[in-house]
Amino acid sequence: MIRAVILVSGGMDSCVTAAMAKNDGFELCFLHLNYGQRTENRELKAFHDIADFYDVKNRLTVDMTHLAQIGGSCLTDSTIDVPNADLENEEIPISYVPFRNANILSAATSWAEVLGANSLFIGAVEEDSSGYPDCRRRFYDAFEKTIDEGTKPDTHIKIITPLIELSKKEIILEGNALHAPINLSWSCYEREDIPCGKCDSCALRARGFNQAGLLDPIL
Amino acid sequence: MIRAVILVSGGMDSCVTAAMAKNDGFELCFLHLNYGQRTENRELKAFHDIADFYDVKNRLTVDMTHLAQIGGSCLTDSTIDVPNADLENEEIPISYVPFRNANILSAATSWAEVLGANSLFIGAVEEDSSGYPDCRRRFYDAFEKTIDEGTKPDTHIKIITPLIELSKKEIILEGNALHAPINLSWSCYEREDIPCGKCDSCALRARGFNQAGLLDPIL
Repeated sequence: MIRAVILVSGGMDSCVTAAMAKNDGFELCFLHLNYGQRTENRELKAFHDIADFYDVKNRLTVDMTHLAQIGGSCLTDSTIDVPNADLENEEIPISYVPFRNANILSAATSWAEVLGANSLFIGAVEEDSSGYPDCRRRFYDAFEKTIDEGTKPDTHIKIITPLIELSKKEIILEGNALHAPINLSWSCYEREDIPCGKCDSCALRARGFNQAGLLDPIL
Repeated sequence: MIRAVILVSGGMDSCVTAAMAKNDGFELCFLHLNYGQRTENRELKAFHDIADFYDVKNRLTVDMTHLAQIGGSCLTDSTIDVPNADLENEEIPISYVPFRNANILSAATSWAEVLGANSLFIGAVEEDSSGYPDCRRRFYDAFEKTIDEGTKPDTHIKIITPLIELSKKEIILEGNALHAPINLSWSCYEREDIPCGKCDSCALRARGFNQAGLLDPIL
């Protein structure tokens, strides 16, 4: 079986991404990043729950606490409040962690090169992702070129973004079809006990379930 | 003054790179990465000594110990021996840390975006760098494109590699001309008390001083 590194934050999108990689026949290797986000403990539990569900042997959790040292985002700097959702806002929100996904993909590529994996799955969503610049397919295309230039000649790693053009509604329907364990995922940026219901991430998830005509199993 | 983030390992190349950025009129912000390399304590001392020399206020040291967790290199995995230098070998040596420079540049870009710096200086050397794929200018060009795609629209960061086409001899002569504190730098991959004289990094440094007709001030 061909190995793939799956970036699993513990959120719904990464949960569905794992289901899609499994369905494509890859041996799953799960990578989780702790970058000092507020809800890390809850996300890490979700990561292991989803890994257990898929019986994943190769799992790695790494600290990227330099993103918290660097700050610049309400997700990593506790002196910056998490604003209430404003899904109509076209500005890049304060929850943007500067260049976060490049930090994550770099670690994932290092691990993939050592594991001999040829694919990196990341559940980024372009349309529905609060306008983060590092969630656009053109960013991943540029990064894939960087991987080609910066790894050994016999290393070939593709970045697979199966959700990139999907809406939250479509992600939920896809996850449902593949029996993804969405009930084990966690999305809230703010709380670890029950979803706050107010942050961008909760708002996007709630709108998606509403549009899909389904109930969120974690509520 | 315009800020620049300078990647300072503590080695001779980064020391001379800092001297060149200073000479270009930038306000220096020094970034050091601990990635679990064997000689980190000695390198960190060199970092602070060089930062003190240039009176650098913004300095950040961050842990990238995930590169040690991931392994795959004699620099980060103590079960893999550091081989003696073989400067004629055309294979990528076992001291290659998979995709290391992308991990480093990603952190540097995150910090630069928060600081409002418009330049990242890295003392990579293409000709003389043991064949690491992530030390080639084409890798940096690809990464610069990734920065453009993955940061805010008003963030513009150039990767400046002033040593990329220089030989070690030329780097030493440039450092001498700019009064770079090469005496404070540390290059050995193996030892922290005196340079081992046998690793690739010691061998390249010794050959450079020999060709420059100068004595290494740390010997």
